[in-house]
Amino acid sequence: MIRDLRICFVGDSFVAGAGDETALGWVGRVTAAAWDRGVALTAYNLGVRRDTSADLRRRMEAEVLARLLRAGDAQAVVLSFGVNDCTHEDEMPRVPPEVTEENAAALLGWAATRWPVLMVGPPPVLDDAAHDARVAALSARLEALCAAMHLPYLPVHAPLAGSGAWRNAVGRGDGVHPDGAGYAALAGLVEGWPPWRRLTTA
Amino acid sequence: MIRDLRICFVGDSFVAGAGDETALGWVGRVTAAAWDRGVALTAYNLGVRRDTSADLRRRMEAEVLARLLRAGDAQAVVLSFGVNDCTHEDEMPRVPPEVTEENAAALLGWAATRWPVLMVGPPPVLDDAAHDARVAALSARLEALCAAMHLPYLPVHAPLAGSGAWRNAVGRGDGVHPDGAGYAALAGLVEGWPPWRRLTTA
Repeated sequence: MIRDLRICFVGDSFVAGAGDETALGWVGRVTAAAWDRGVALTAYNLGVRRDTSADLRRRMEAEVLARLLRAGDAQAVVLSFGVNDCTHEDEMPRVPPEVTEENAAALLGWAATRWPVLMVGPPPVLDDAAHDARVAALSARLEALCAAMHLPYLPVHAPLAGSGAWRNAVGRGDGVHPDGAGYAALAGLVEGWPPWRRLTTA
Repeated sequence: MIRDLRICFVGDSFVAGAGDETALGWVGRVTAAAWDRGVALTAYNLGVRRDTSADLRRRMEAEVLARLLRAGDAQAVVLSFGVNDCTHEDEMPRVPPEVTEENAAALLGWAATRWPVLMVGPPPVLDDAAHDARVAALSARLEALCAAMHLPYLPVHAPLAGSGAWRNAVGRGDGVHPDGAGYAALAGLVEGWPPWRRLTTA
């Protein structure tokens, strides 16, 4: 039976698929794979370049409600952010990790009272080792938060940092975002994640 | 020279690519084609199922500003809506044509003071001849409005109504939305439209 499933993907440039010459990003790839499994999935991509968790708090509620209220047979929200929070401006992170955690708790908590919620962790940043170390630490922090909130969290930092496909794809891209082959590697991690598969099984 | 072009596509389920098993829709296809021409295009898909022009007035400004303010080298907005306005509920259109025109003037006018704006007309509705006749009439009305506002308008109703690819694709879909092959036919019309090509040429 094909369900009318609608999912909002809320996050940053990696959610938006910035740099992907195929225009699919990881969100488009996992959506097409769900169709291949017989699930009629409408994916609303709410990734915005440069967005931090603070930016998401300003827009997520209105944007998600405009898409999921009274919609379809089944809905869900997938969140993914963190790299931009860890960017230094004037030697300070755009959002300090304790505030990111507070923002994440608010975003996840709001969504989880209404819909199934999954979180995908931030990917590695290859052009700045200090930035990347902050992202790795934030990913662990977000993973602990999701565990405490009993929400599924997919850590992608370590597997992508060790992935030749991701590293080569970022090299062909702008140094931060991969090309389509890198998004395919990230989509593969999501595709192999049991909570995602349970959500998107016909 | 590859530009960092960011475009918001604002509209309904046809903009969202509902029913496309490839997850590209026409927006994804014309985005990938722009990359093929050397244009680094970030497409923000703001299509929402069931949205009328009245719904768009409630959300367009906030959603577009969150994506285009201080973003990239170049930005633009593409609008496309109308089919849902013409849907009858209790024997009345969800939005009467004179109100759709008023909404369209407001939406186009707000965007056009800030960015280049293009409008793509509504596609045909194959499962309801009376609904489809209202859409055809609204498309002509929106075309006249855009002409008066000196904004490019692409009528797609007649070419898609006469397109075997579109009709067959809708037959394989849910009776209103096509599958991927239909979105490819619509993307082909946009790809061949000089105002779109001028906007997305490296």
